[in-house]
Amino acid sequence: MLDTLFHNATVVTAAADFAVFQEALVGVRAGRIERIETAPVGATLPRAKETVDAGGGLILPGLVNTHTHLPMSLFRGLADDLPLQQWLSEHIFPAEAKHIDPEAVRLGASLAAAELLLSGTTTCCDGYFYETEAAEAVERMGLRAVMGQGVIDFPAPGVPDPSRNIDHAEDFLRRWKNAADRIRPSIFCHSPYTCSSATLIAAKKAASRHGVLFQIHVAETRMEADQIRAEHNLSPVAYLDRLGVLDADTLIVHGVWLDGEDIDLLAARGCPVSHNPQSNMKLASGVAPVAKMLQAGIRVGLGTDGCASNNDLDLFAEMDTAAKLHKAVLLDPTVLGAEQVLAMATCNGARAIGWGDEIGSVEVGKAADLIVLDTAAPHLMPMYRPVSHLVYAARGSDVRDVMVGGRFVVRDRKLLTADVEELMDRVAVRCRTIGTSSK
Amino acid sequence: MLDTLFHNATVVTAAADFAVFQEALVGVRAGRIERIETAPVGATLPRAKETVDAGGGLILPGLVNTHTHLPMSLFRGLADDLPLQQWLSEHIFPAEAKHIDPEAVRLGASLAAAELLLSGTTTCCDGYFYETEAAEAVERMGLRAVMGQGVIDFPAPGVPDPSRNIDHAEDFLRRWKNAADRIRPSIFCHSPYTCSSATLIAAKKAASRHGVLFQIHVAETRMEADQIRAEHNLSPVAYLDRLGVLDADTLIVHGVWLDGEDIDLLAARGCPVSHNPQSNMKLASGVAPVAKMLQAGIRVGLGTDGCASNNDLDLFAEMDTAAKLHKAVLLDPTVLGAEQVLAMATCNGARAIGWGDEIGSVEVGKAADLIVLDTAAPHLMPMYRPVSHLVYAARGSDVRDVMVGGRFVVRDRKLLTADVEELMDRVAVRCRTIGTSSK
Repeated sequence: MLDTLFHNATVVTAAADFAVFQEALVGVRAGRIERIETAPVGATLPRAKETVDAGGGLILPGLVNTHTHLPMSLFRGLADDLPLQQWLSEHIFPAEAKHIDPEAVRLGASLAAAELLLSGTTTCCDGYFYETEAAEAVERMGLRAVMGQGVIDFPAPGVPDPSRNIDHAEDFLRRWKNAADRIRPSIFCHSPYTCSSATLIAAKKAASRHGVLFQIHVAETRMEADQIRAEHNLSPVAYLDRLGVLDADTLIVHGVWLDGEDIDLLAARGCPVSHNPQSNMKLASGVAPVAKMLQAGIRVGLGTDGCASNNDLDLFAEMDTAAKLHKAVLLDPTVLGAEQVLAMATCNGARAIGWGDEIGSVEVGKAADLIVLDTAAPHLMPMYRPVSHLVYAARGSDVRDVMVGGRFVVRDRKLLTADVEELMDRVAVRCRTIGTSSK
Repeated sequence: MLDTLFHNATVVTAAADFAVFQEALVGVRAGRIERIETAPVGATLPRAKETVDAGGGLILPGLVNTHTHLPMSLFRGLADDLPLQQWLSEHIFPAEAKHIDPEAVRLGASLAAAELLLSGTTTCCDGYFYETEAAEAVERMGLRAVMGQGVIDFPAPGVPDPSRNIDHAEDFLRRWKNAADRIRPSIFCHSPYTCSSATLIAAKKAASRHGVLFQIHVAETRMEADQIRAEHNLSPVAYLDRLGVLDADTLIVHGVWLDGEDIDLLAARGCPVSHNPQSNMKLASGVAPVAKMLQAGIRVGLGTDGCASNNDLDLFAEMDTAAKLHKAVLLDPTVLGAEQVLAMATCNGARAIGWGDEIGSVEVGKAADLIVLDTAAPHLMPMYRPVSHLVYAARGSDVRDVMVGGRFVVRDRKLLTADVEELMDRVAVRCRTIGTSSK
């Protein structure tokens, strides 16, 4: 007998053939997808402990957000529309120095997890400090996540002595390896310009030793690319390659300022890339050459970045932006088509963070990370092609139900894993002091 | 005594000083805003026939969408990611020729009006064919609108003989002038490359004679700009100026391919512009030089364009895109700040379509076109600055209540002016044939 049966749905699998099943059912048992098949309304349904009518809506894999800084949800909208250095040095860095402590990280990560789940993201790939506290919060909220302990060559929240940053990160890996089904630890090096070559090499070695993902912001801004070139006479990507840190388990975040050689190098090393169009746009970093990356066969996932630079975590909005941005810049309406972009937010995102064997598509044997979209709304009518709607018309608020690993975490748009009202009250109280001190 | 009193709100006025009232109330009488003032929770409230607790949310002017083709909601997602000419000639034009009749226009306009109202847009500026049927539907749905009868030098829906296109449009103006409080008629010339100079001149003269807005797609694509230059040795804007059709009542839609001289000319003539970033991106038309237009003092409003090229009518998403796109392309995070973009979607949009004296801001004496946003959601927490959230984090689905001219059209996210379920059923039935025939 199945644990959960979804029926009366159109299933967008995001599997290799991108099959779409009309009038279909999805059966879940022991946390995994056990069957997917066509079942016209009125057909006899398989037995299940719980049967859920999807109401003619869409079922798709839970979305995968390949780049977040969850606790920064507390800085959402704190400062916008400013030159990057002023935004960082006058607002974000002071706010982090003053307000980021273990309790703030728990609170901010919980708020972000609530936002992610309610808008259909079931997995994120995070990087921040006090990452143990963030991982505990995320685990409790029911999200699946790669959690990366931050490494930077400056005093950082929870790591006052930068000479201890690798040890600290390795402690984090030991603590979280196999500690929780839905949490995978990782190391997140801030960037090639804030970490020395020794730090980068040591951090990557530690990540490899533990068999975990190594994440790093690379070539986000022209300033960074110019600085690395001035210091090393190499592009950021070529510099990292010389250090030996580029391989299939190194997630390149941003990759805005890449030339053709950088793209070829990333493809040759098998490096996945996290594309964060809205953050890159809002901070005026530029437009990543994603169409070329895809042509080169690079695994590209989609990310929102942190709430301080987006200012939300809605991956539906991010899909819409990704699909449109590159068309405008390249003057070519055929690049980044809807299917390709949906793949970035699902199967390819999962592959980019090294979890593609378990999640990212609706396939028999995969973890039951599923979302149900309510499509009975004027902005989703009519519906000729579901994939088009998912990218170009749907919003996070259309997500009705969310399941992670076979367990419901959202039902009828309500989060089941936390008291959202109480969480928002705590956020409001805590953030009163942040708003005041940043002015 | 007031008719309606909203209290327990933060009021974002979008007035000239862009004042924001915390813990405030808004009083409405006889369809107009009568008072706006601070009123801490617990204060004695003015008497009103109906008192509405905004629940600590935001009140702002109803949004103004300066460019729509409402009936094209029936073609939402029919075809995407195709070269422009293929998209038009193989999908959109055949669908229009085969499926656009008075009943389809009524249905599509009703569906679009429902989507607009539910996502906080209270006014749109439309251009299409069978515009009388569209205007009737819009009027019934409770929206406010400038409705433009289409003029093109080809056989068009409802205007089989193009030699009658100006007469037909003028009949429309006569019929709708002063016919309904919330509907203002207009003439919508398709473009300088699909209308002859004689048509353009005659259409503008007819619009001027009746004192109504003249709308036209201008410089949307490079192809158009090249074609006009080849034929007339002038840019599209300079060509229209030579014809004498540019003045403060001519709304330039798109304006993507403008050079510095075009911008100066538009500024000198006082022409408003409708900026449609998502449509321009999706169709790969390019990026309009909006920062330069704003510097030149041009009134720029925001538009979604039709659902066939967006694929939704959510002006919150459009604000987010507008604010981010130009930062990325100009590599300058200070352009199109949140306040400037919110103005484009409210007060400046209203001014762009010639209705700025009545709508577009929350000010005493203006029409009571108001929306209430529910901000008690994780993706809007914390809130340091309401204007930032409206542009960078809010979604159309956060709109709780909508009032047009003092009358509620949406309460608690439910449309009051139509049976949405029944409307969607009719759309589904009608569109079955459209989906089939386009394949």
